[in-house]
Amino acid sequence: MSASSPAQAQNLVNGEWHNTKGSRDIPDPMNGEAFIKLPDPQIDEIQPYVESLRSVPKSGMHNPLKNPERYNMYGDISMRAAEEMRKKEVEDFFTHLLQRVVPKHDTQARAEVTVTRRFLENFSADQPRFMARSFGVSGDHAGQMSHGMRWPWGPVGLVTPFNFPLEIPALQLMGALFMGNKPLVHVDHRVSIVAEQFIRMLHHVGMPKTDLDYIQGNGKVVGEILKQGHPRSTLFTGSQKVAEQLAVDLKGKVYLEDAGFDWKILGPDVMDFDYVAWQCDQDAYAATGQKCSAQSILFQHSNWVSKGLEKKLADIASKRSMDNLTVGPVLTWSTEAMLGHVDKLLKIPGARLAFGGKPLKGHSIPKQYGAIEPTAVFVPLQEILKDGNFEMVTTEVFGPVQVITEYSDEQLSMVLEATEKLEAHLTAAVVSNDAQFTQKVLANTVNGTTYAGIRARTTGAPQNHWFGPAGDPRSAGIGTPEAIRLVWSCHREIINDVGPVPSGFNGVTT
Amino acid sequence: MSASSPAQAQNLVNGEWHNTKGSRDIPDPMNGEAFIKLPDPQIDEIQPYVESLRSVPKSGMHNPLKNPERYNMYGDISMRAAEEMRKKEVEDFFTHLLQRVVPKHDTQARAEVTVTRRFLENFSADQPRFMARSFGVSGDHAGQMSHGMRWPWGPVGLVTPFNFPLEIPALQLMGALFMGNKPLVHVDHRVSIVAEQFIRMLHHVGMPKTDLDYIQGNGKVVGEILKQGHPRSTLFTGSQKVAEQLAVDLKGKVYLEDAGFDWKILGPDVMDFDYVAWQCDQDAYAATGQKCSAQSILFQHSNWVSKGLEKKLADIASKRSMDNLTVGPVLTWSTEAMLGHVDKLLKIPGARLAFGGKPLKGHSIPKQYGAIEPTAVFVPLQEILKDGNFEMVTTEVFGPVQVITEYSDEQLSMVLEATEKLEAHLTAAVVSNDAQFTQKVLANTVNGTTYAGIRARTTGAPQNHWFGPAGDPRSAGIGTPEAIRLVWSCHREIINDVGPVPSGFNGVTT
Amino acid sequence: MSASSPAQAQNLVNGEWHNTKGSRDIPDPMNGEAFIKLPDPQIDEIQPYVESLRSVPKSGMHNPLKNPERYNMYGDISMRAAEEMRKKEVEDFFTHLLQRVVPKHDTQARAEVTVTRRFLENFSADQPRFMARSFGVSGDHAGQMSHGMRWPWGPVGLVTPFNFPLEIPALQLMGALFMGNKPLVHVDHRVSIVAEQFIRMLHHVGMPKTDLDYIQGNGKVVGEILKQGHPRSTLFTGSQKVAEQLAVDLKGKVYLEDAGFDWKILGPDVMDFDYVAWQCDQDAYAATGQKCSAQSILFQHSNWVSKGLEKKLADIASKRSMDNLTVGPVLTWSTEAMLGHVDKLLKIPGARLAFGGKPLKGHSIPKQYGAIEPTAVFVPLQEILKDGNFEMVTTEVFGPVQVITEYSDEQLSMVLEATEKLEAHLTAAVVSNDAQFTQKVLANTVNGTTYAGIRARTTGAPQNHWFGPAGDPRSAGIGTPEAIRLVWSCHREIINDVGPVPSGFNGVTT
Amino acid sequence: MSASSPAQAQNLVNGEWHNTKGSRDIPDPMNGEAFIKLPDPQIDEIQPYVESLRSVPKSGMHNPLKNPERYNMYGDISMRAAEEMRKKEVEDFFTHLLQRVVPKHDTQARAEVTVTRRFLENFSADQPRFMARSFGVSGDHAGQMSHGMRWPWGPVGLVTPFNFPLEIPALQLMGALFMGNKPLVHVDHRVSIVAEQFIRMLHHVGMPKTDLDYIQGNGKVVGEILKQGHPRSTLFTGSQKVAEQLAVDLKGKVYLEDAGFDWKILGPDVMDFDYVAWQCDQDAYAATGQKCSAQSILFQHSNWVSKGLEKKLADIASKRSMDNLTVGPVLTWSTEAMLGHVDKLLKIPGARLAFGGKPLKGHSIPKQYGAIEPTAVFVPLQEILKDGNFEMVTTEVFGPVQVITEYSDEQLSMVLEATEKLEAHLTAAVVSNDAQFTQKVLANTVNGTTYAGIRARTTGAPQNHWFGPAGDPRSAGIGTPEAIRLVWSCHREIINDVGPVPSGFNGVTT
Repeated sequence: MSASSPAQAQNLVNGEWHNTKGSRDIPDPMNGEAFIKLPDPQIDEIQPYVESLRSVPKSGMHNPLKNPERYNMYGDISMRAAEEMRKKEVEDFFTHLLQRVVPKHDTQARAEVTVTRRFLENFSADQPRFMARSFGVSGDHAGQMSHGMRWPWGPVGLVTPFNFPLEIPALQLMGALFMGNKPLVHVDHRVSIVAEQFIRMLHHVGMPKTDLDYIQGNGKVVGEILKQGHPRSTLFTGSQKVAEQLAVDLKGKVYLEDAGFDWKILGPDVMDFDYVAWQCDQDAYAATGQKCSAQSILFQHSNWVSKGLEKKLADIASKRSMDNLTVGPVLTWSTEAMLGHVDKLLKIPGARLAFGGKPLKGHSIPKQYGAIEPTAVFVPLQEILKDGNFEMVTTEVFGPVQVITEYSDEQLSMVLEATEKLEAHLTAAVVSNDAQFTQKVLANTVNGTTYAGIRARTTGAPQNHWFGPAGDPRSAGIGTPEAIRLVWSCHREIINDVGPVPSGFNGVTT
Repeated sequence: MSASSPAQAQNLVNGEWHNTKGSRDIPDPMNGEAFIKLPDPQIDEIQPYVESLRSVPKSGMHNPLKNPERYNMYGDISMRAAEEMRKKEVEDFFTHLLQRVVPKHDTQARAEVTVTRRFLENFSADQPRFMARSFGVSGDHAGQMSHGMRWPWGPVGLVTPFNFPLEIPALQLMGALFMGNKPLVHVDHRVSIVAEQFIRMLHHVGMPKTDLDYIQGNGKVVGEILKQGHPRSTLFTGSQKVAEQLAVDLKGKVYLEDAGFDWKILGPDVMDFDYVAWQCDQDAYAATGQKCSAQSILFQHSNWVSKGLEKKLADIASKRSMDNLTVGPVLTWSTEAMLGHVDKLLKIPGARLAFGGKPLKGHSIPKQYGAIEPTAVFVPLQEILKDGNFEMVTTEVFGPVQVITEYSDEQLSMVLEATEKLEAHLTAAVVSNDAQFTQKVLANTVNGTTYAGIRARTTGAPQNHWFGPAGDPRSAGIGTPEAIRLVWSCHREIINDVGPVPSGFNGVTT
Repeated sequence: MSASSPAQAQNLVNGEWHNTKGSRDIPDPMNGEAFIKLPDPQIDEIQPYVESLRSVPKSGMHNPLKNPERYNMYGDISMRAAEEMRKKEVEDFFTHLLQRVVPKHDTQARAEVTVTRRFLENFSADQPRFMARSFGVSGDHAGQMSHGMRWPWGPVGLVTPFNFPLEIPALQLMGALFMGNKPLVHVDHRVSIVAEQFIRMLHHVGMPKTDLDYIQGNGKVVGEILKQGHPRSTLFTGSQKVAEQLAVDLKGKVYLEDAGFDWKILGPDVMDFDYVAWQCDQDAYAATGQKCSAQSILFQHSNWVSKGLEKKLADIASKRSMDNLTVGPVLTWSTEAMLGHVDKLLKIPGARLAFGGKPLKGHSIPKQYGAIEPTAVFVPLQEILKDGNFEMVTTEVFGPVQVITEYSDEQLSMVLEATEKLEAHLTAAVVSNDAQFTQKVLANTVNGTTYAGIRARTTGAPQNHWFGPAGDPRSAGIGTPEAIRLVWSCHREIINDVGPVPSGFNGVTT
Repeated sequence: MSASSPAQAQNLVNGEWHNTKGSRDIPDPMNGEAFIKLPDPQIDEIQPYVESLRSVPKSGMHNPLKNPERYNMYGDISMRAAEEMRKKEVEDFFTHLLQRVVPKHDTQARAEVTVTRRFLENFSADQPRFMARSFGVSGDHAGQMSHGMRWPWGPVGLVTPFNFPLEIPALQLMGALFMGNKPLVHVDHRVSIVAEQFIRMLHHVGMPKTDLDYIQGNGKVVGEILKQGHPRSTLFTGSQKVAEQLAVDLKGKVYLEDAGFDWKILGPDVMDFDYVAWQCDQDAYAATGQKCSAQSILFQHSNWVSKGLEKKLADIASKRSMDNLTVGPVLTWSTEAMLGHVDKLLKIPGARLAFGGKPLKGHSIPKQYGAIEPTAVFVPLQEILKDGNFEMVTTEVFGPVQVITEYSDEQLSMVLEATEKLEAHLTAAVVSNDAQFTQKVLANTVNGTTYAGIRARTTGAPQNHWFGPAGDPRSAGIGTPEAIRLVWSCHREIINDVGPVPSGFNGVTT
């Protein structure tokens, strides 16, 4: 993939891979070269997608009573896809492809491939139908029994962002398929080529080609398909602004991931200093801060401050480098926008630059992308809480920028006031082994994925526990059986009542 | 309660019962007399409600880590409220009060009281906290374990309709409270006096007065409170039109019950003829057809038709009478509106009046309410499916009106085409003990509460199984542990990670 | 109940209360007077009991498919029994009756009544059938679905001890009944009059009289009924020696509670000193140490020792008195036996009497019962571990006697060696808020009910969490839904497979 | 493997494969040649096994709090073992090896391999820890929460029979390992070479060699190891007589599979005649009747008899042949023993030979094994129920012999009397799509794995639903998450109670 030999991406509908009339160029984030030719579907090309959605029965492609052999087929596909991904060359292929579109450290890129593979392993063989298990309760008389079943939505939409080009679409589309839905899938155009390759691999291991449609290109065109196609539910992960608009457009038939302004609180008990500092750095700056779970604000108990945590953080951050992609291009904020935001923060009384705050040097990252040093701005706690400042301080910068602050024992209530005011509820961390301290913070907060304990972190979207926001009926989870059951199926109650008719039946009307 | 001695209803906010500046009269549905004086709050009176909502922490009044003793308090309140309702005089009080505002047969009214009482018994003692149980999964290393918890929304809205004045608000508000929410409750103004009495009973048995706010009056004013008060979730049961608007206004942060156009299919195996006929009559006409679960369309296999089911249905319906309230006033459709709709149906080619279709006589039901005989219109199946007719035939008349039709073995696919086209997915019935027949129908439909078997019915909202629609991410359930967990709480994952730090820790940045 | 007016107890079989040919006197534990006349059935009187057991179908009185209305009947009985027990006079009646047969402090006796009542509330209305819920998984083809159901044993035995005359039989017999079994119930003869009254109350609130049989008298006679009657399962709580014999006699068809030699470890972090000391005293000496969950050995970290815990414990214990029954008669060990055991302990090198060790004075407790001061013997840790000493130190004295010892940071492994060697696995406590310390102890032990944290205790058999041993396939739990499902029902899988037959069926034999 | 080149089997203890001092020859069941040299450990060689068992901590090799990374290791091992078994050559290897020791049709042998592989796939990646999930319930005050956990037994025994040499040991030993136990494994000596190969494959894919011990040879020696080694639980599948003895020897610390006298009832509704007949033949005679789930008695409704089912069964059975191993050697009953049993049955009044009843011809099966034609004996229902006959009729012949009988509508109660009297409760089938008929039979029976519906069968031990008996506290299941949780782990409750101490604490002693 390069300017001289660009990759040609394709779309999929009704089981056919095809090109659109026009196409658009995707720039290489490392040097701006047009290295991918992407389909660019226009409104007049969407009809097949709309009809494909509309043709899906609302009882889905399968459900506990319909085509149950498809649960097993997906157990088989999932297992075989995992088997492919255990091959060194396939793992490397996805790792390197990932890095080309979202430059990040090899460890970070590879983790995404590994999590995806383990997720697939989790749903081998009988596990899809085990996930769709029902429950039954005896009725009021012989012959009656009620069954709570998990039913698919049928046609569904799935829109995912740029920062995890493999993991998010892979886990969500498989979840949709396991439960009997037919998804229309769209991934952010900058990175959608990765999921295309994943889908082609699924075909290779046996997935029927008509089981999902895939559309690369302009998000607005996809929005139009969703409006016309009436998916019964749509999962959206991406910018909170688009999410809120989509919620209105689709009348609330959505599951959303939340904005990612994530906090970390360091408790009064200082221990494992180097480890905690390292984890802070990873949470704030790994993948150049482009995780929805990135640490955006750090509340340090004075005990940590007096131990010199800030200097330690600066030291670690200073070792990040373009060379190994421990820092890299920012895809949705330009350098100017990020430094401009930092400048605004610095105007708050008492605020100061802790470290960073400068553009990266010696690179060919194109101008529309951002490139700055890992940056931390210290803002006094009492200033953060002020109405004028709060919104600015808690604006999510989707790049390597965090706010840090300090609190004393007496100021814990102010910290909790800040977490109460925050409207983003994705991840959080309470770094402390003090049982009563963590209990208090956890009891008074609602972030969907909250780590507690001295090894607490804000980042981590593994396949083994819920990852997603809390506190919103539209909240989506990803990857675990509970998340898939919630997002990709609904409750249906079937009550068998086969008789016999009661012996004393007398037909009184009421 | 009469014109000479009208009841005076009151509102509740911040623990205080109070009157509004103005008030409005509620007419007795049996004779039009103003028998209730209802609060009529205006926009300039809503501030306390808005502030009360806003003051609720998003972590709720309690959650698995905060004030867990409140789960037990609600187990105690629930048990004591049930104990009250087991007293003959209290049961009679609610039964009669119910009948005054929604005239229905004593059996129908009493069933609502009984279901409410059994629901309360279900959540005695430890059951609220058992319902809020979490699960835990071991982590990747010693000291790590993830916990999936049920977290409250905090401030919530709850709006319920006229037809079940006790059961729906009681079950939903208790569900909200069990899980740690503080609800603002509003019930349709025509019947809201019933829930007021229920709330007063809760206070009597120990519920803190500030645990919920109750507002009677104009629904639009309540809409404004919800807009300004930012409840984190709102449960709405009522007209589908209002529901869809609310979904947009509240950006999808809603749980909704669905429209109630419910179908019943009689299968090929005719048995228990009298029982099935009686159940059809009950499903269509009990409570004068004013149940969201009422049978709106009946697909009869030809085998039933040839046995004379239609005549049998007419016979049974003819015995319904104002005397014992087996038929009574319709609160949301006037006589003219219902008969006008019947006329339109009769213009469909092949359509004919099976029975009914006339105004009731000899009553004092006020003009704004409806009063007609139990009515059935036969429409040929092929006509039902036509685009022009389908919407009309499937319009929900919230009164004693149903459509009936016939199908042969070869026409089952047309019946399933009709159920696929229908957008209402609340209840349904497949009346058959033919295992392969019911399997096929169930596999290809999605109604949330579907009865199958020779004793199948469309009505019935007991406390022991899920009642609610399926096929929509906004779908609400009521009364069961699963429904309450879904509607009144969300998933929060807390991952404990207390260490120790890995022995080989080397601090490599990625 | 007194010598002049003794209570006359009766047995129940086939729905009839009746006297036996002979009877025996039960002495008042406070003064030795014969205050109860107990049935004394002989071998030639057991036939009705044997036949009653044998006549129970193995599919039980009800199961998810048979007589499901009985689940609701028991929901009703449970709720009504709780309602009775909420009456002050009924609560007092059971509290006082309890105290007469097992003299203990009013708080201790009343707690037993309260726990029983809350347990009953927990299984009101639909909760018995909710507890018996099944699960379903889709099969390999349309028409197939497997259902995991909870099935009763049918005829069962239930034998319970003297120390909780109400709570243990009440919770276990109700559990047996909820799940569809018919139990033969026997309670230790010294206290069986309490359960008789409880059963009579159940009859009063609607339990069919033939649903359980109750036999008071000689345990050996009951053993013979069990051998001849072939209960399909038997729950035994009582002496470990009898338990092991019964396990052999009934070929392992038993659930057992374990011996109660329970340990407590005080961790390195000293806090809440007074509270922890008080809890230690309660755990060791409340109910005169006659709880299977009583603290039998206390491992004190040196930090606690140096704070003076031993003296504090002595102070608290010294306030216990016959006057308010904070100390009282011991029903299964005589004074001589207990003091003899203490003497043996004191012969271990380094052992010394920490406090107590003397007979109580000024009482009329009859000689066959015991009466001594709360007693603690300090034994050095290294001596405890020695083979000759270990069995003696870890012999459960069912009275107010405990062993205390001390360990340093380096000796934690010796403490864990002791807990590993112990064969009793009922309750335990790790008193520490040090996350890594508790993690380590919990990870390496197996006691069934283990409290951890600074408020940890060994006693407490509430109705809201599992109480029972771990580490033995015969382990019984009590009172919670999980315990009842385990002990009083089994898994039955029913796989529906209604067809259709596969289209390509060719009948190849394999 | 042949007489000229016999296979040399080995035992495994403490991670070392080794030979015993002596060895024994295993005859080829097709020709009697000594084709395997088996270890033959004597009592003086068992010490390492005993010590290995005794050295396992009772908290297991891992548990939810100890070494949780081992759950993931086993997810990995399970996945990799499945990957191996998907290789054609490995599948063929096990299929052929199986057939050498238990000659059966390729389809039957291959199914065993497939089920084992799918089972392994089911527990890939995170599924072992998901299976070990705990649940949590809030406590009575802040800081308290109870957790119900799944704890291993630690050292366990596992003894499995000859008829499924791969599936039963593989599923059970992996279940034991997943949950943290260390098993001592023994398989019937005639077939134990298969499991040896499976264990070597596990080592190949990463299982630590010390994680299980494997002993081939004499069952009595194994019994001695179990007595001395004190496994905390033992799973035994095999003869009911040995099972009952083991239950006594191990004091009930066992899980058992039941005897396999399995019934099938054909209901009144005759349909899919050829299919049902074929399934009857498969259930009775596949694997030469050597399945614990084989159909041992067939109750035919008269409607089936009058359609000529018996002749049809005879026709199908007559096509079974040694050539393709649709009939083959019987390993535990000699020809004489089986035909002698048939003769006894034929002496019952009204009994007659339906078909079969002759020795197989033209084979080299050694004399100690059996070889007869598929055989059915008709016995009149009223005779079956007679006391003298019942035990004989219901004796399980572990070979191709079944009893058939007939009943009319009026005689259903006699059929149910027979199923009630039967003491074997493994599998059963109710072949009928009549909802009320199957409901009645299912409600009144207790077989652990019961199929119902027109496609019902008695055989089938897949990995996706419970397989095992019901009605006995010692009942073992196999392969599903529920079975593994039950058989290979127990409930442990850990209650965290970290404070704070109640503010009004006053230290009153009770």
